[in-house]
Amino acid sequence: EINVENTECFSCNIHAEIDAAVQLLLKLKVNYKEVTGQDYKAGCPPSENSVAPDNGPAADGDNDNDDEDTVDPWNVSTTSAKGVDYDKLIVRFGSNKIDKELVDRIEKVLGQKPHRFLRREIFFSHRDMNQILDAYEKNKSFYLYTGRGPSSEAMHVGHLIPFIFTKWLQDVFDVPLVIQMTDDEKYLWKDLTLEECHHFAVENAKDIIACGFDINKTFIFSDLDYMGSCPEFYRNVVKIQKHVTFNQVKGIFGFTDSDCIGKISFPAIQAAPSFSNSFPQIFGARKDIPCLIPCAIDQDPYFRMTRDVAPRIGYPKPALLHSTFFPALQGAQTKMSASDSNSSIFLTDTPKQIKNKVNKHAFSGGKDTVEEHRKHGGNPEVDVSFMYLTFFMEDDEQLEKIRQDYASGALLTGELKKILIETLQPMIAEHQERRKQVTDETVKQFMTPRPLNFKL
Amino acid sequence: EINVENTECFSCNIHAEIDAAVQLLLKLKVNYKEVTGQDYKAGCPPSENSVAPDNGPAADGDNDNDDEDTVDPWNVSTTSAKGVDYDKLIVRFGSNKIDKELVDRIEKVLGQKPHRFLRREIFFSHRDMNQILDAYEKNKSFYLYTGRGPSSEAMHVGHLIPFIFTKWLQDVFDVPLVIQMTDDEKYLWKDLTLEECHHFAVENAKDIIACGFDINKTFIFSDLDYMGSCPEFYRNVVKIQKHVTFNQVKGIFGFTDSDCIGKISFPAIQAAPSFSNSFPQIFGARKDIPCLIPCAIDQDPYFRMTRDVAPRIGYPKPALLHSTFFPALQGAQTKMSASDSNSSIFLTDTPKQIKNKVNKHAFSGGKDTVEEHRKHGGNPEVDVSFMYLTFFMEDDEQLEKIRQDYASGALLTGELKKILIETLQPMIAEHQERRKQVTDETVKQFMTPRPLNFKL
Repeated sequence: EINVENTECFSCNIHAEIDAAVQLLLKLKVNYKEVTGQDYKAGCPPSENSVAPDNGPAADGDNDNDDEDTVDPWNVSTTSAKGVDYDKLIVRFGSNKIDKELVDRIEKVLGQKPHRFLRREIFFSHRDMNQILDAYEKNKSFYLYTGRGPSSEAMHVGHLIPFIFTKWLQDVFDVPLVIQMTDDEKYLWKDLTLEECHHFAVENAKDIIACGFDINKTFIFSDLDYMGSCPEFYRNVVKIQKHVTFNQVKGIFGFTDSDCIGKISFPAIQAAPSFSNSFPQIFGARKDIPCLIPCAIDQDPYFRMTRDVAPRIGYPKPALLHSTFFPALQGAQTKMSASDSNSSIFLTDTPKQIKNKVNKHAFSGGKDTVEEHRKHGGNPEVDVSFMYLTFFMEDDEQLEKIRQDYASGALLTGELKKILIETLQPMIAEHQERRKQVTDETVKQFMTPRPLNFKL
Repeated sequence: EINVENTECFSCNIHAEIDAAVQLLLKLKVNYKEVTGQDYKAGCPPSENSVAPDNGPAADGDNDNDDEDTVDPWNVSTTSAKGVDYDKLIVRFGSNKIDKELVDRIEKVLGQKPHRFLRREIFFSHRDMNQILDAYEKNKSFYLYTGRGPSSEAMHVGHLIPFIFTKWLQDVFDVPLVIQMTDDEKYLWKDLTLEECHHFAVENAKDIIACGFDINKTFIFSDLDYMGSCPEFYRNVVKIQKHVTFNQVKGIFGFTDSDCIGKISFPAIQAAPSFSNSFPQIFGARKDIPCLIPCAIDQDPYFRMTRDVAPRIGYPKPALLHSTFFPALQGAQTKMSASDSNSSIFLTDTPKQIKNKVNKHAFSGGKDTVEEHRKHGGNPEVDVSFMYLTFFMEDDEQLEKIRQDYASGALLTGELKKILIETLQPMIAEHQERRKQVTDETVKQFMTPRPLNFKL
């Protein structure tokens, strides 16, 4: 064939027109200045004295403000050593603070002490949690939905936070749980093959199972598998995709015209498990069973979109519980990276590696010399070892004593690190032991679409 | 909750910026005129005497040129009574003409007369058909792929053209066939429910089956069903979606930022059946089996995109055979509409309805009076009855005689219409009879993923 792909020119007519529009805009502004001797200012008729600043359109969709933290599903950054300002985030995202009143209500409803992640504001924000509790008090059930993007085999302790909390929720509320492994998302975003992403999904599922989920109440699914096994799931994806425009995902996720169409339509796939009829094997045709999503706050954009779409397709809005980010060893300025083995404690680390990493890399809020430290005390607010203890040490009084002793200087950085090391070492070892018990057969069972023990 | 969805403002920043840019452009043009007393003309500095036409940017992606036909999957229009200029379309789309040499080669390879659609340039354009024939001569097999968008129960004779031809191809080449019912597409584009679209898919499948396809060699699938039954199909969809950007589908299909994300990602779903490993039940894991797609030329944009992506994901490019459009009774200027029952002959029409429609609505190339017609003759090139006969009358000599007699004036319009009516009535009646024989069980069998008789 000689002239096969000369169709490109034809196909690009529209693109060319848009380019032309931009060119036109630029020329207009230049010509305007030639004619008037003034820069163009939108909305103002030309006058003799005004010199307007260039307030032309920004085409790149960049809406960062210098004083704002960046928090979206792919980027989290802040300039503060204390980490992201979560109170500001609540205002920006329009969610609600998990305040003492709500924690007290959860304690009352459950008749037991709330999880340390609630007591310590690690899960700090929510949407509609009171509705879930209202329903629960009337003996109406709900289900839990959480997930993971499997971009490598290496999971670190930070990745466990939503799962540790979700396991607790499953236990105390006695409800079914679906866990989405977004292997399709990782394929679309990363330089990985489908096979690699699917493999990571199964490997990560083993670590998730090792958190202790009830096999009779938990369904873990790979998108790549489940989309091709459940027509009802795909039907919900298409329903959502019909009710979200490119303009909307552009606004919510910052997608651009250069992004692949897979990324652009993916948010519908993360949204779909929020609706109970995406799981006919569990809930039959029922579309009205409330969904509660525990997740890190960076995933909220997906569920803002989901909550916007839900009423328009006749489904209830999912409720949410948002967690803070688990800090990197180097400090709370960034989210951890699975690709930097020194940025966190990995679930495969040996006791010796844990000890070395904490001693070598954990950012310290202590003073430079023992003398200074004894005199002025350390700063637990920026000390990563102390932050890690707030995640993993169960005893509130012990933790508070550590905080006070560190702040007063009674506790040295080395001693604080030792406490953390002795907390992490058995925790990780036990996790490794439980993971070893997870057979291929067990994984297969968790990942098979099937009925769950579910009392409506 | 008081402040739940106040996040919309945050999310819409970018949208607002684009709105602002458009407003800016409009204001610039108004202000420019105020200042210069002239309309703005891109690229020309202002002068005293020129009054420029408004050639500002078209923001709606409209790329019609006055002298060009519009042909895309959703719009076909032309100003010529002869219909679309197909030679121009070949140049614009970059395909190849099905010339006498290719038709002769097909005849030689098959050892039998080519289908009348080939003899009469109804299938007029192709991509890589010679490669399919090369492979076939070396006893290598291929498979056929065609489809239908089921937007209503009502199918007309024009809808049968690709299926009549595909049945012939299946018979003479003895190859398997997959037929995609894009019920998901119709849901995304039309004001229909998922249930309606799926219902139309099954009903239309009955008409397709009535064309006589070999049940042992044909798989018909609804996207809504098959996507949820075949992980390999979804994997190919995601692969394609990773390798096509929004810019590309914007250029190819004219999508805009206001289109839903389902439309934007849909082209990947129509592309995926072009690759043999989308059908593991038929072809196993083989991804190298060539695909030949007979379709109307308006579907070519999907497959230009597919052919662009194929080598980048390690798959062969599908070959294509393109048909012209079946003209509406009212004339060849437009494609027919399933929603206007007078625009064509429907597969449910009675003999009487066929007679009335042809007599009343078929655009005539004849003269106003019998005297004039006898003297000057009619124009078969714009006569819809004659056009329909080129589609459905098998005998070449008989057709040519009709053409000559009509052009000379020996054959009157009423007589020509009578020949068409007598051709259509038994054809439609036989179709209706065959459709009656199609049981729900038969449809189910055609639409069940299963192995087909397929010799590699």
